[in-house]
Amino acid sequence: MISQHRPLDPSRQEQYRILRDTDLRDYLAKLPAVATKLGGWPTDWSISEVGDGNLNLVFIVKGAERGIAVKQALPYVRLVGESWPLPLSRSHYEHLALVHQARLAPGLVPAVLHHNEALALIAMELLEPHIIMRKGLVAGLRYPRFVDDITTFLARTLFFSSDLAVPAARKKEGIAAFSGNHALCKITEDLIFTEPYFPAEQNRWTSPWLDATAASFREDLDLHVAVSRLKLKFMASPEALIHGDLHTGSIMVTETETKVIDPEFAFYGPMGFDLGAIIANLIMSYLASPGHERSAGERRSFEAWVLDTIEAVWTEFSRKFVELWRTEAHGDAYPAPLFAGEAGAARLEAERQAYLDRLFQDTVAFAAAKIIRRILGLAHNIDFELIEDPKLRAVCEARSLHLARMMMLDTPSFRTIGAVTQAVRELRDWQPDFDR
Amino acid sequence: MISQHRPLDPSRQEQYRILRDTDLRDYLAKLPAVATKLGGWPTDWSISEVGDGNLNLVFIVKGAERGIAVKQALPYVRLVGESWPLPLSRSHYEHLALVHQARLAPGLVPAVLHHNEALALIAMELLEPHIIMRKGLVAGLRYPRFVDDITTFLARTLFFSSDLAVPAARKKEGIAAFSGNHALCKITEDLIFTEPYFPAEQNRWTSPWLDATAASFREDLDLHVAVSRLKLKFMASPEALIHGDLHTGSIMVTETETKVIDPEFAFYGPMGFDLGAIIANLIMSYLASPGHERSAGERRSFEAWVLDTIEAVWTEFSRKFVELWRTEAHGDAYPAPLFAGEAGAARLEAERQAYLDRLFQDTVAFAAAKIIRRILGLAHNIDFELIEDPKLRAVCEARSLHLARMMMLDTPSFRTIGAVTQAVRELRDWQPDFDR
Repeated sequence: MISQHRPLDPSRQEQYRILRDTDLRDYLAKLPAVATKLGGWPTDWSISEVGDGNLNLVFIVKGAERGIAVKQALPYVRLVGESWPLPLSRSHYEHLALVHQARLAPGLVPAVLHHNEALALIAMELLEPHIIMRKGLVAGLRYPRFVDDITTFLARTLFFSSDLAVPAARKKEGIAAFSGNHALCKITEDLIFTEPYFPAEQNRWTSPWLDATAASFREDLDLHVAVSRLKLKFMASPEALIHGDLHTGSIMVTETETKVIDPEFAFYGPMGFDLGAIIANLIMSYLASPGHERSAGERRSFEAWVLDTIEAVWTEFSRKFVELWRTEAHGDAYPAPLFAGEAGAARLEAERQAYLDRLFQDTVAFAAAKIIRRILGLAHNIDFELIEDPKLRAVCEARSLHLARMMMLDTPSFRTIGAVTQAVRELRDWQPDFDR
Repeated sequence: MISQHRPLDPSRQEQYRILRDTDLRDYLAKLPAVATKLGGWPTDWSISEVGDGNLNLVFIVKGAERGIAVKQALPYVRLVGESWPLPLSRSHYEHLALVHQARLAPGLVPAVLHHNEALALIAMELLEPHIIMRKGLVAGLRYPRFVDDITTFLARTLFFSSDLAVPAARKKEGIAAFSGNHALCKITEDLIFTEPYFPAEQNRWTSPWLDATAASFREDLDLHVAVSRLKLKFMASPEALIHGDLHTGSIMVTETETKVIDPEFAFYGPMGFDLGAIIANLIMSYLASPGHERSAGERRSFEAWVLDTIEAVWTEFSRKFVELWRTEAHGDAYPAPLFAGEAGAARLEAERQAYLDRLFQDTVAFAAAKIIRRILGLAHNIDFELIEDPKLRAVCEARSLHLARMMMLDTPSFRTIGAVTQAVRELRDWQPDFDR
């Protein structure tokens, strides 16, 4: 399933250089397939750098016929600079993941037009007029295709790389093929599972309102145990090839299309991490929404849609995942001869539900970790950041932290997605006491 | 920690040939270090093939000075023949594991003198006068060094390859380095976690007495779910570099020494699998013991020693593992800044106990799977096989199966090792009803 191809050795990577406008134009002009697709004279192509992510350069190149997107990895974290080096090999893993996802979830990731491993460069179809979903959610827009598309993406990419679908030997080859992507995993391990819980230098939060809450998260040892168990699960549970960074900033949408982008954090990890990322970011969208109201209650119907969407993401995901399990279980887990006959089929069906119940618990706990890091850690999101009144922002964030703490410390009390949305709904108008 | 070196590609393996006496003599004579160690003229060396395992050739070579053991992998399963091919690369993984274990648990594995990957050959120190521990246990012998040595081996090899001791990047490299050993993992997946639970052709049991019990294991869907969950855990829980086949036939002993041999099944898997293997084989030794009595009760004090040993294996293992965790935790799990100060240290200490409680549950369940496969699956053990009266053998085996079924289906009721030994003791004189 996964190519055994490994990243280039460092000696060949010496070809690497950062492509600026002219360089990039000359480079693309020499690729017949790409140049034809762009159309017209290379000198007439427009090139603009648009990357607003934390890590890479992203160029939009437009020719006479159409546009393409070109993503080039930098040897350091763009957000921070050369002081924080990051291996170019992540482009290799992103390409590997894109190819894998395109096969398993056709039409739900951008088509790759060209990949140059030495340059850490991927040329892709330009997603137009798609926008980053997070921006749409901040604007109060709804996406009718989202639930169906993202649950197809999740169910198919996770199921088809799991031990339910893939023989153990091929699964181990897949794990090995992505094992070199550990520098990206380490970012997650540090920023999500560690730093928000101690006075790490990079942490920030909406001060002074959240000072006491941030301090309480740094002192809550039950929380530290819970997040450490999650970290261990993240590091040593290769259940499936996960996207690894599946927030609403990694999804581009229109009313009729959904595309998952940026899988450079991909590796074999726990399925609940991807599912939790989606649920967490929808919860934050909902709880940030009051901060974007111009008149009281004007976003109520958008907010109701977000809650419905949270429920439908889990419900549809589980339905599709179980259906794949019923029909495409070619892996070594749950061997067919052990569940022969009618009684066996019924018992296996019950076990599928039990499996999903366990996965839901992981999802709830990972979602909690994803919420906490966005409010107390290094990388924040515009759902909250664009709320201009800092005290109002702090109120929205405090509600989210209150929920996340419950979800992480008392995960078993959230047995269903309905229990999650009910808690979210109840927090919509909860007033934190900033003076305690 | 683990070399990134991968097995030879198949083209270079064409050098492989099975070494018979003369070939082996010539081969060893050309290795100065080995030839010097053996001493005297090569023509005077005695060579005998002594392999009684299921997979490989094992030669004992004796020279004027001393003897060595030479193990060569065959491209098929020796027990079955050429119809069951098995990759020679297992010798590469065995060598990798031996080197790793020798560094972590000095003196507890045979010293490697020479390794030829193309020939799938490892020359080791000759363990003399050591015998296979299982043979000693059948004879009713006690091994006063065993508890201390095996718990040092387990605590150190498991701890030092886990996320508690090793940074995540190096751990992932280790996982990848062993991922190619999947053919050996598959043997375990099939023979331990699958075949005993359906009418697989290779299964055998002490018939007719165990016919009804064997049938009940093939029909018990709760057991099938439980063993399937264990199989999934075996396939996708790379907690540590485990030995992978740590029964009493993989341990050589004298009164004063313990050596763990044959780690060709090594890979990154669940720690409870190795621990369960030891506990299971001691339980079988105890429950087989009445079958080896020449007069009633003559082995009572040996049996008491076995029960004490079972308890001490877990108690000493946990003590040593926790002590390593307190002093050598250089991994990325349970980050130190999250457990600072006195309160943090106390909370982490409580979590260490909780971690070991979870590991004990895995150990109980894996032990159950190891017992069941030895009685209902392909590979049996001499603890039972050497009981001449087949009905008496069936009685001993039925007691073991009765216990194993409880341990697998009701694992949480075995909260302590004392609960396990109490159940074992109670079954010592339980009489199965073969007429039901």
